[in-house]
Order: sequence, then C-alpha cells, then structure tokens
Amino acid sequence: MVNNVKTVLVTGATGFIGNHVVEQLLATHDVRVITTARTKPTGAPWLSNVTFIPFDISTDFSEKDLFTYFERPDAVIHLAWQGLPDYKSLAHLDTYWLQHYRFLTNLLTNGLTDLTVTGTCLEYGLQSGCLTEDLPTQPTTAYGLAKDTLRKTLDLFVADRNILFKWVRLFYMFGKGQNPRSLLAQVEAAALRNEPVFNMSKGEQLRDYLPVTSVANNLVRIALQKQITGIINCASGQPIAVRTLVERFMQEHQYALTLNLGYYPYPDYEPLAFWGHPAKLQSLTNP
Amino acid sequence: MVNNVKTVLVTGATGFIGNHVVEQLLATHDVRVITTARTKPTGAPWLSNVTFIPFDISTDFSEKDLFTYFERPDAVIHLAWQGLPDYKSLAHLDTYWLQHYRFLTNLLTNGLTDLTVTGTCLEYGLQSGCLTEDLPTQPTTAYGLAKDTLRKTLDLFVADRNILFKWVRLFYMFGKGQNPRSLLAQVEAAALRNEPVFNMSKGEQLRDYLPVTSVANNLVRIALQKQITGIINCASGQPIAVRTLVERFMQEHQYALTLNLGYYPYPDYEPLAFWGHPAKLQSLTNP
Repeated sequence: MVNNVKTVLVTGATGFIGNHVVEQLLATHDVRVITTARTKPTGAPWLSNVTFIPFDISTDFSEKDLFTYFERPDAVIHLAWQGLPDYKSLAHLDTYWLQHYRFLTNLLTNGLTDLTVTGTCLEYGLQSGCLTEDLPTQPTTAYGLAKDTLRKTLDLFVADRNILFKWVRLFYMFGKGQNPRSLLAQVEAAALRNEPVFNMSKGEQLRDYLPVTSVANNLVRIALQKQITGIINCASGQPIAVRTLVERFMQEHQYALTLNLGYYPYPDYEPLAFWGHPAKLQSLTNP
Repeated sequence: MVNNVKTVLVTGATGFIGNHVVEQLLATHDVRVITTARTKPTGAPWLSNVTFIPFDISTDFSEKDLFTYFERPDAVIHLAWQGLPDYKSLAHLDTYWLQHYRFLTNLLTNGLTDLTVTGTCLEYGLQSGCLTEDLPTQPTTAYGLAKDTLRKTLDLFVADRNILFKWVRLFYMFGKGQNPRSLLAQVEAAALRNEPVFNMSKGEQLRDYLPVTSVANNLVRIALQKQITGIINCASGQPIAVRTLVERFMQEHQYALTLNLGYYPYPDYEPLAFWGHPAKLQSLTNP
C-alpha cells in the first residue's frame, strides 16, 4: 500500500546513503534537502533537481515551527547524524541525541505525520546470531545507546498520536561514496597504489552486508508505505565472512593483493557473528 | 570492607528517603546537603548538624568545578530527581536526565571517586517474577527510560576511570514522610477521616516492599563500602500482595476500614507480579 506522499524532506542528503536516497526519490517525488555550512552539497548529480533549505540542528530552534519552515513535507527521511565513525564518543549522548530528539519532536508537534529514521545494528550490542527486531536492545557503544534512546523516546512520544513512525536499523553496506576509512574503500585504495599486501583482521567475523543502492532502495520503499511501522531491520539476512567479502570484491575488480589475515584484532564493540532477520523488510517486497 | 569515607554529599536530602539517609549517616559521618529555592529544608531533626551548600541543577554550571564547590566530598549519594510521581512525562528524558548526567560527570571529571545513585525497578519495565540485576532492561515509562539511560551513560563514562560507581535500584517502600498520594498514606488518611470504605485496586499484584528506614540503611551501607559496585537491587526478595500489605498495615494501626477491592484498575506500566533478587545486597550484609 503506497502512501499519498508527494514531497519528502531528506536530512543527511549529502552523506553516503543520502546521496542514493535522493537520487532514487527524485524519479517520482518532490525532494527537499537540508543544507548547513558543514555539508555544502557538491558533485551530486541531483543538485539542480531538489529544493535546498538551510538549517543547522545545533542551533536553538525551540521557538520555531520547523514543519512550516520546511514547507510541510508529507514525509521525512532522517538520515543525519554527527560525529561518526567515532562510535565511543559520549557526545552522541550528551549532545547529539537531544538535538535530534528536539528536531524530530518539533516536526511531529507541528504536524508531520510520517517519519522514517535510521537506527543501527549497534543497538543490539554484543548479541550474536540472527537478530530480530523484537530483541531487547543492549548497546555497548555511546552511538548505539544514543540511537537506542532516541528510538525509545520517540516511541513514547508517538504513542498517543496518529503518526507513522518507522525506525530502520542499518547493518553494513558498501558502494559508491563510502567512507575512505571503510574496509572495501581501503582495499581499493591499496590496490590502486599497487601495494602487494593488505593488512586486515582474521576476517572470520560474519556480517550482514548490502550494496548501498539496495539500502537506499529499502529506505525509500519503507518511507513511502504506511503498512509497516516500528523497527525494521535493513538487512540481507545472509551473513558473509569479511574475508569472503574482501576476496569477492578483489576478484570482481581483478585486484591482486595478498591478504595479511590477523594483522588487526577484532573491534571490541561487535560480536563475532551477527546478522539481521529481514522478514519484516521482505514482507514489504512481497506483499 | 569499609571505605575510608569521612565526608558525604547527599542530594535530595529533604526527600522521603533522603531524610532517613542523612539521619543515619550523621551518626558516623560529616554530611553535606544541597539546598535549592524549591527544597528549603524545614522540620528535619538533623538541620543543625549538616553543612548546607546552595545549588540548583537546572542552572548552567558547565564552567564550574562542582567537586571543589562542594568541598571535595569522599563520596556522593545522589537521590535527587524532579517531576515525580509523573512517570510518563517526557521531561524526564528531554530535560532532567541531561541535567543529572552533566551534574554527575562534572563531579567525576573534577575528582569524585565514589558515587552512589538511585535507580528504579521501572528500568526493568514489564518483566515479571524475580528480577536479577543482569537482566536486560526494557523500560516502558519516560522516567524508567531516563534512569536507565543515565545509568548506561554513566557506565560508559566510568569505564576507563578509577571510580566506584554503585547504581541502587529501588523497589517499593513505606514509612514516615511518604508521599501523601502513596497507597498506605491514603489508607491512613482515610482512616483518620473515619471513612468507612477504602477504594483500591484488586490488590492481588505482588510487589517488593521495604520500610524506608531499611532502604536508607541499605543505601548508606552500599555507599560506604567499596567491594560491591554496579547495579544493586535494593529489595527484600519477598513479594507481598498489595492487599495483604494494606490489611497488615490496618491491623497494626487498628484501622477499621472496609476495602473496596477492584475499584481502581492496575496501572498499565507495571507487571502484575515482580520483585527484586536481593543476593548482591545480602552479600553486603553477610560478608
């Protein structure tokens, strides 16, 4: 069931996922994008096709009606977040989460009825295996706890209101525009520098990866429907060993690096094997 | 093992529990108490035996060294919290929790090494039965979520620091100074007004009750030792039906009310039967 959504406000539009979300939305929708001094949009092919509205979430907007300021969008896809990839900084909790809570509740108080926000698999914390949306969360990072608290607080906020609230938990992704510090970007950079060896972890950890274009497509489909709300894992449900992921990537691009497995330890804030249960997402695909 | 604690700062000292905590601490310790315009201490027998230091947590204290301001106490017992008993107000999250987080981390950053804070059984949410400290929390109220988030955030904060952090989850209590809106206070008031009937819930819910003097004693003992840290249930481990509690109370005081059971529904934010597992607390009593 498709919502009667015509205009969508996208935050974080110039980020890794946001770029692809805007591109896909533009085929059918009127898109508004937030700009700040920090995120001047450059290079995106959709620059001339969206409406830019300046806004900075770190300013005091408590007296403003942001919903009217953003020209009453039918739906909001909220991707923006600060301070990544430093998952451990307490700024996620003592600074950012309240900014996002106030931003989103300002929109909802003033009339927004359809909100999609990205969460993270770090909300699950160190739980292993196939993770379903109804598992109690146990985040161990400041970022995971901030997102988890934001979701729980918004849940309390929307409880007695007529609001479509979708919380999309992102797992891992790769693709065009990815952070240069991410794994496959580093493999690519090493290959292009003709380095013989690539240092990495043992690579046996099992992760849930999706191409960023699929992530963006899932987000757009979730945002534009009104049947499925609450927490939705944006996951493949198909765990892959990180070593296999890297080898497959090298094969596709015919990179001839030798992998130096076990050079780095595993990060302490992730379990060795976890992936998302994608049933809720897939029920969208096949109605 | 007793800490070498000589001076203790108590917040919320004029509250229901605080009054008893200060009284018990004064026998052996030097006690400092915070006063605000809102909580002018009156009537407490210990008024002339403590040091009062004015402070308001809702002001901007970000530039101050609060630890020095409070004259470098050896330990802090933090009981204060606003807005109770309205457990559902979102102010617990969007206003109070950050004030408390900033207050406590200001003290810890500036040298406090021993902190005891009261949590709540509402952090467990709707989980039934005997609740152990290591259960994942699932709060369903704004107050429970705010306390839960405060505890988790402080856990992240103290992780790499040499700090004794004790989080004491309170269950139910009764005694001198209790809120006039609490159950036994209302029974007493009705009896003193010579009302024939007392309207209440069915009374079959099982709860964990302690006299407030025991709660205060537990808090003082927890605060003054350094062996047991982390989450500690302040509970009896002995569930009692609320109806039995009321009947026992009436018998003790020879009140002749008739109970109109089932007049009120059960609150929606509590399970029908839950109580605290007190092993950690009891290991303190019998070392």
